[in-house]
Amino acid sequence: MNQQPTVFIGCDTPYEQAKIVVFGAGFDGTTSYRPGTRFGPMAMRQESYGIETYSPYLNVDLEDALVFDAQDLDLPFGNTKRVLTRIEAMTKQIVMDEKIPCLLGGEHLLTLASVQAMLAKYPQLHIIHFDAHADLRDTYLDEPLSHACVMRRIHELVGNEKIHQFGIRSGTREEFDFAKSHTKMQRFDFTGLTACLAAIKDKPIYLSIDLDVLDPSCFPGTGTPEAGGVSFMELHAAIRQIGQYNVVGMDLMELAPGLDPSGSSSALACKILRELLLAVTIGGQYE
Amino acid sequence: MNQQPTVFIGCDTPYEQAKIVVFGAGFDGTTSYRPGTRFGPMAMRQESYGIETYSPYLNVDLEDALVFDAQDLDLPFGNTKRVLTRIEAMTKQIVMDEKIPCLLGGEHLLTLASVQAMLAKYPQLHIIHFDAHADLRDTYLDEPLSHACVMRRIHELVGNEKIHQFGIRSGTREEFDFAKSHTKMQRFDFTGLTACLAAIKDKPIYLSIDLDVLDPSCFPGTGTPEAGGVSFMELHAAIRQIGQYNVVGMDLMELAPGLDPSGSSSALACKILRELLLAVTIGGQYE
Amino acid sequence: MNQQPTVFIGCDTPYEQAKIVVFGAGFDGTTSYRPGTRFGPMAMRQESYGIETYSPYLNVDLEDALVFDAQDLDLPFGNTKRVLTRIEAMTKQIVMDEKIPCLLGGEHLLTLASVQAMLAKYPQLHIIHFDAHADLRDTYLDEPLSHACVMRRIHELVGNEKIHQFGIRSGTREEFDFAKSHTKMQRFDFTGLTACLAAIKDKPIYLSIDLDVLDPSCFPGTGTPEAGGVSFMELHAAIRQIGQYNVVGMDLMELAPGLDPSGSSSALACKILRELLLAVTIGGQYE
Amino acid sequence: MNQQPTVFIGCDTPYEQAKIVVFGAGFDGTTSYRPGTRFGPMAMRQESYGIETYSPYLNVDLEDALVFDAQDLDLPFGNTKRVLTRIEAMTKQIVMDEKIPCLLGGEHLLTLASVQAMLAKYPQLHIIHFDAHADLRDTYLDEPLSHACVMRRIHELVGNEKIHQFGIRSGTREEFDFAKSHTKMQRFDFTGLTACLAAIKDKPIYLSIDLDVLDPSCFPGTGTPEAGGVSFMELHAAIRQIGQYNVVGMDLMELAPGLDPSGSSSALACKILRELLLAVTIGGQYE
Amino acid sequence: MNQQPTVFIGCDTPYEQAKIVVFGAGFDGTTSYRPGTRFGPMAMRQESYGIETYSPYLNVDLEDALVFDAQDLDLPFGNTKRVLTRIEAMTKQIVMDEKIPCLLGGEHLLTLASVQAMLAKYPQLHIIHFDAHADLRDTYLDEPLSHACVMRRIHELVGNEKIHQFGIRSGTREEFDFAKSHTKMQRFDFTGLTACLAAIKDKPIYLSIDLDVLDPSCFPGTGTPEAGGVSFMELHAAIRQIGQYNVVGMDLMELAPGLDPSGSSSALACKILRELLLAVTIGGQYE
Amino acid sequence: MNQQPTVFIGCDTPYEQAKIVVFGAGFDGTTSYRPGTRFGPMAMRQESYGIETYSPYLNVDLEDALVFDAQDLDLPFGNTKRVLTRIEAMTKQIVMDEKIPCLLGGEHLLTLASVQAMLAKYPQLHIIHFDAHADLRDTYLDEPLSHACVMRRIHELVGNEKIHQFGIRSGTREEFDFAKSHTKMQRFDFTGLTACLAAIKDKPIYLSIDLDVLDPSCFPGTGTPEAGGVSFMELHAAIRQIGQYNVVGMDLMELAPGLDPSGSSSALACKILRELLLAVTIGGQYE
Repeated sequence: MNQQPTVFIGCDTPYEQAKIVVFGAGFDGTTSYRPGTRFGPMAMRQESYGIETYSPYLNVDLEDALVFDAQDLDLPFGNTKRVLTRIEAMTKQIVMDEKIPCLLGGEHLLTLASVQAMLAKYPQLHIIHFDAHADLRDTYLDEPLSHACVMRRIHELVGNEKIHQFGIRSGTREEFDFAKSHTKMQRFDFTGLTACLAAIKDKPIYLSIDLDVLDPSCFPGTGTPEAGGVSFMELHAAIRQIGQYNVVGMDLMELAPGLDPSGSSSALACKILRELLLAVTIGGQYE
Repeated sequence: MNQQPTVFIGCDTPYEQAKIVVFGAGFDGTTSYRPGTRFGPMAMRQESYGIETYSPYLNVDLEDALVFDAQDLDLPFGNTKRVLTRIEAMTKQIVMDEKIPCLLGGEHLLTLASVQAMLAKYPQLHIIHFDAHADLRDTYLDEPLSHACVMRRIHELVGNEKIHQFGIRSGTREEFDFAKSHTKMQRFDFTGLTACLAAIKDKPIYLSIDLDVLDPSCFPGTGTPEAGGVSFMELHAAIRQIGQYNVVGMDLMELAPGLDPSGSSSALACKILRELLLAVTIGGQYE
Repeated sequence: MNQQPTVFIGCDTPYEQAKIVVFGAGFDGTTSYRPGTRFGPMAMRQESYGIETYSPYLNVDLEDALVFDAQDLDLPFGNTKRVLTRIEAMTKQIVMDEKIPCLLGGEHLLTLASVQAMLAKYPQLHIIHFDAHADLRDTYLDEPLSHACVMRRIHELVGNEKIHQFGIRSGTREEFDFAKSHTKMQRFDFTGLTACLAAIKDKPIYLSIDLDVLDPSCFPGTGTPEAGGVSFMELHAAIRQIGQYNVVGMDLMELAPGLDPSGSSSALACKILRELLLAVTIGGQYE
Repeated sequence: MNQQPTVFIGCDTPYEQAKIVVFGAGFDGTTSYRPGTRFGPMAMRQESYGIETYSPYLNVDLEDALVFDAQDLDLPFGNTKRVLTRIEAMTKQIVMDEKIPCLLGGEHLLTLASVQAMLAKYPQLHIIHFDAHADLRDTYLDEPLSHACVMRRIHELVGNEKIHQFGIRSGTREEFDFAKSHTKMQRFDFTGLTACLAAIKDKPIYLSIDLDVLDPSCFPGTGTPEAGGVSFMELHAAIRQIGQYNVVGMDLMELAPGLDPSGSSSALACKILRELLLAVTIGGQYE
Repeated sequence: MNQQPTVFIGCDTPYEQAKIVVFGAGFDGTTSYRPGTRFGPMAMRQESYGIETYSPYLNVDLEDALVFDAQDLDLPFGNTKRVLTRIEAMTKQIVMDEKIPCLLGGEHLLTLASVQAMLAKYPQLHIIHFDAHADLRDTYLDEPLSHACVMRRIHELVGNEKIHQFGIRSGTREEFDFAKSHTKMQRFDFTGLTACLAAIKDKPIYLSIDLDVLDPSCFPGTGTPEAGGVSFMELHAAIRQIGQYNVVGMDLMELAPGLDPSGSSSALACKILRELLLAVTIGGQYE
Repeated sequence: MNQQPTVFIGCDTPYEQAKIVVFGAGFDGTTSYRPGTRFGPMAMRQESYGIETYSPYLNVDLEDALVFDAQDLDLPFGNTKRVLTRIEAMTKQIVMDEKIPCLLGGEHLLTLASVQAMLAKYPQLHIIHFDAHADLRDTYLDEPLSHACVMRRIHELVGNEKIHQFGIRSGTREEFDFAKSHTKMQRFDFTGLTACLAAIKDKPIYLSIDLDVLDPSCFPGTGTPEAGGVSFMELHAAIRQIGQYNVVGMDLMELAPGLDPSGSSSALACKILRELLLAVTIGGQYE
């Protein structure tokens, strides 16, 4: 009898042998507008059976990669701090076990907990941040722990010159001004990514992908869709490129599956996750 | 030019003259399952223009009642305690101004803040609680401030014999056991309401209506629909009855409009609100 | 090759032999709130293949009745008067050919055109009107030709004592006052229908059914759902009863199929139409 | 780390100790109209976390019952015969292990495989069949293996006087005629159930519930909703009653979760399943 | 207490100081296919709080522009002529007060009323028309006042060589033939816009944007989506360019928010409106 | 009275004069994931009235082409083999009558029946296959007759070098390996189409279009959307090009209209069908 849990397709390597550990955190408690990213990780697991484990782009198969899907964390809705603490603890354990964590959101604030956990081991961590929104507010409705503030909080942890933002096309004037002197921001697209990676070299990288960096035409299933984004193929190319560098942690955030009844957004997120896991697995070796 | 805000239909008496003050609190942060009650109050305002101000049941008109709609509070998503504090402050002001507050939720936890505010003025407050769920857990996912614990928290404030629960048809065995010695619970329906009111007499009543007390057939637009509920006409009759007693505060909670694309649930909530406002306005005088 | 048009199931008697002629008028131009009844007739035809032609309630089969489905009229959207003129012409032709017209709406204003056409032949026409709304406003947003005014307009044609309203539970105070002296209105339900029919005896009856007379629990697919309505079985019983009298015309209005994605409302409308057609066919003879 | 599969809430007794074995068969291949029941079992598992394991109706808890959830069978879409063979094999194994199978559909045709499996052990099996539709066609679109023919096929296996149908309100004239001499059919409701059970006494019963026996107001999430059905409380009472007899197998069919975006239909199906499992568990002993 | 009406984000300059006046006209009465643009203006106001007031494209902020949002006109559904008269009157008043009107639709026919109002003051008005459809029919279902005829009617007012159409990819052969000798039509895209503007120079321009000029991939929320349209960035670039010329009036038409449950279409419309308002505000001065 | 059946717009040439015969086969029985393509053909007919018969791309009008729409076949759900037999018979008749068949799906497996029928007359048939998925599995869940195996089955009929696949971006490693030695596969896009057609020359071509070759941004309404596809304009160009060669049969598969509530996917499918019919009609002669 079938008594295996539903894992993301092809991610059934036992924890001990795994190189990458995927886990979900379905929390959307600070989401100010349309909630629903809490259902993101589970939707991805289910929808993943609509794609294949084999990538014709990279000519590798998820079955041959070493990935464990640790399922979703149980999270106390309504208590943002405790939620962050749990994600931090989970990430710490994975990193301590010499594996690469891959967080599936949930809202973008959760990235703060991941980065915090990673800094203990990787004090020189660089953050590559794909997003439509700058996420650099100091507070949002007087709250410092908000999805709209996550990169500002992370900046307080890592300091200047460590956050590399791409695809940003929405924010207050203050956020764009803050970016000028505190982060490295590429507005609208991925221009400059090659140079950015060349400068980072082999330093550890945390890749945080807010899926709303994509144009809403291909990814409508998110709470604050923002026109003028990148295409799937552009995001795909960027991920392949980054995979050749020293990625030590990553996340895929802000899928709100219920907002796209066609299922296309969930399917795209699955494909991006497969390509991300494979790109990091093969690193600089492919082709 | 039309520069009035959208208020609930017929609720445009100036604050100073108003007898009842309606306000919305669109918070669903501790909702463990399907969120969306945050959109409840605004949906009710918009949908209210699909009903009439006149009640053929009570033969009175909302235009003749004295109700002010104070719009929605701005709430800091992600910080449950601050949210409760704001609702408590708003309720206190209304009560201090000798008016009756009517909170539109949002999730049921918010009732805690309302009751807390009212107890200062009405230490003998009785709570009449309509709900499908007992809401008597001590904690939920280790959190004491959860929608599933609201009546337990209120019990800590008001003590035994003050909470009168009707329509309850879901809970753990522990909750039903707790109810036996701490609240007065009528399972499934409104049996005993007449006796309950006769015993309360003219003591102050806070009426808290979780709309999921209704059967999902007439109210599917809520996060945790529970079959076997009361009908619209049964709820309506109960409200008429309670309106003849000393209601000093009330709330209408847990409409999640997006879950019912037909709009029927929102329309029903509007009709219940109209009848509630009118029943409390005319008190014991009608017919 | 299959080159028959889609007709309502079992309604394929040739026009010449038909006793009843069904036709659709998908117009919702004066609908002030949620449009969509324009798709009503076509949705009913398609959905009708989900029910059977045989009625276990009446023990007769639509295949044995004599009904022709004349499809939908082409209507000029945006020109309300021309729309009414076309419906009137169509109805006149059917009546002239000694058949019973059955109009499928579309919005309720269209009933005005039907009644106007019938009065030429049946000057003593009685109107039995099932609805949640009184539809007795003099004007709506200054317009006399509005769905909210249709019974007022018809009253101008037929005078006092001819309109028998049942199930009404929404309207302005003025509408309810008007009804007191000009129509015969039964609020909320079908109480008094037996007496009403006994008084009408064999005079010609036009039966106009606004499907929102039903409770939104069983019929959410309509623009202005109003809680507190009748059940399917109550409506069904009323139709059986009326079918035994001299029904010379009828309509079934206000299905907005898109508002109920489950299809239940469309399916119910089909079943009501089948039972209506059969009840009128067998008249006083059954059981 | 959380590596348990998602089971129906409270159904985590190991197979060996289990008294009842729940399993899903998400097949809707012969569905002629709206498909989607294939997603029924998985939707029920997920939705089950919105209800409680404790029943305030029966005062027992699913945690104390002995139920194992064997997950869904893998089924070859497009090959109806092989699908039936797999379900038959699964059911046989459960019955051979002295447990009670509980099939979650999927379309109603699958009941044929269950009954076939049970007859080996229980040649005197009685079928109690709750449904809106007679399901007694000889063929449907020339196919004998169709959801519309399932009770006809079962009749060929068990013969006259063994099938007890309740709630039937749709079918062809031929089906109703067939029922007169071959099955025991109660149209529209559960009248006669007490007498039926008294006659069956302690003979083995297979209870097959097509959830569309319910009125679409409380259960719109099914492919062919048919107005005029029973209420949740009526179905609930019938299940309690049958549970006191010798139920040796059962099924719960035709939930199509995607047709009811509110989730109410899935939630109701969960509650019915909980009550069914508990009623069969406690048998004749409660209260 | 919060008693401001909901205005489009950042559009709260008092009327007297405003340079641009936004107002909504939620009318879709002649819409022959899927209605729903009546909800367009209100959806844009609400959705606007999901974008920012600051434009990183233009480096200006809507808070610094002088825009007043006059809310929606009350319109008599069912009487097309009176609807047009009201829009014309509103537009006239704004123009008379030396402000730029910006109409939010609603269906495209309404543009006729706007243009009529502007011609009194600007007899040399040029119309720049972005659309998927030619809108050049003489009548539609025998009606001259139809959304499908709006540019034909406007041509009767302004004559040859004044209407500049871009993006057109749908129409009858007759419409395309008519365009050859009466309007300046660029099929499929914005080729030739630069030359067109160079020829217009400083003559007054009315910019009418039917949002279905966009490809349905980025704008599915409209009644008649037509594949093969322009991208958001192309439309954005065109608007920036036109903003540098003498725009004296404008509209944004045909958002039907209910057709895109993801909200992406509404969000895009908001972003286009912000950029349009800012582009016209800064005129030829930016960068 | 309007008694014509609903045909695809402009496809009303009598069968005898027709050059192309369109027919629908709404079967989705082997669909392993989200069903719903059964509603594809009917949705296209209805949606076709939202586009025009005239193509501004090709400057021809469907009214001038010779196309007959034979409506949908009645298909026995649940019996895959009989379904295929019926489609094969229909296709054979059309081919025998010297006409070009154009099948509207339904799921892609049905193409097998079409090709089988054509091979009798055209033993040298080349298949041009547009798809996101390779469809080259030997079996799927042990079934050889599955949508995932259709090109593998066709390969068994036509042998090597006859199947030309374009746009493929999903499959197992085995499928891509199989393609290397058995079909001609172009991954991801239409590169090489010109050379392919030049090599085929005037040999007979069957064009099979799985609409999921399109990017989900423009075509979300399909069961297994796969990011990274071609645009509408790219598909359009490919069709124009192929139309100049000897196309003797064609199909348009896998529209699942219910998955895209905006209707954009259905509208796009209609436009593609119009352009396909016109491109094949004018053949090598246009412009």
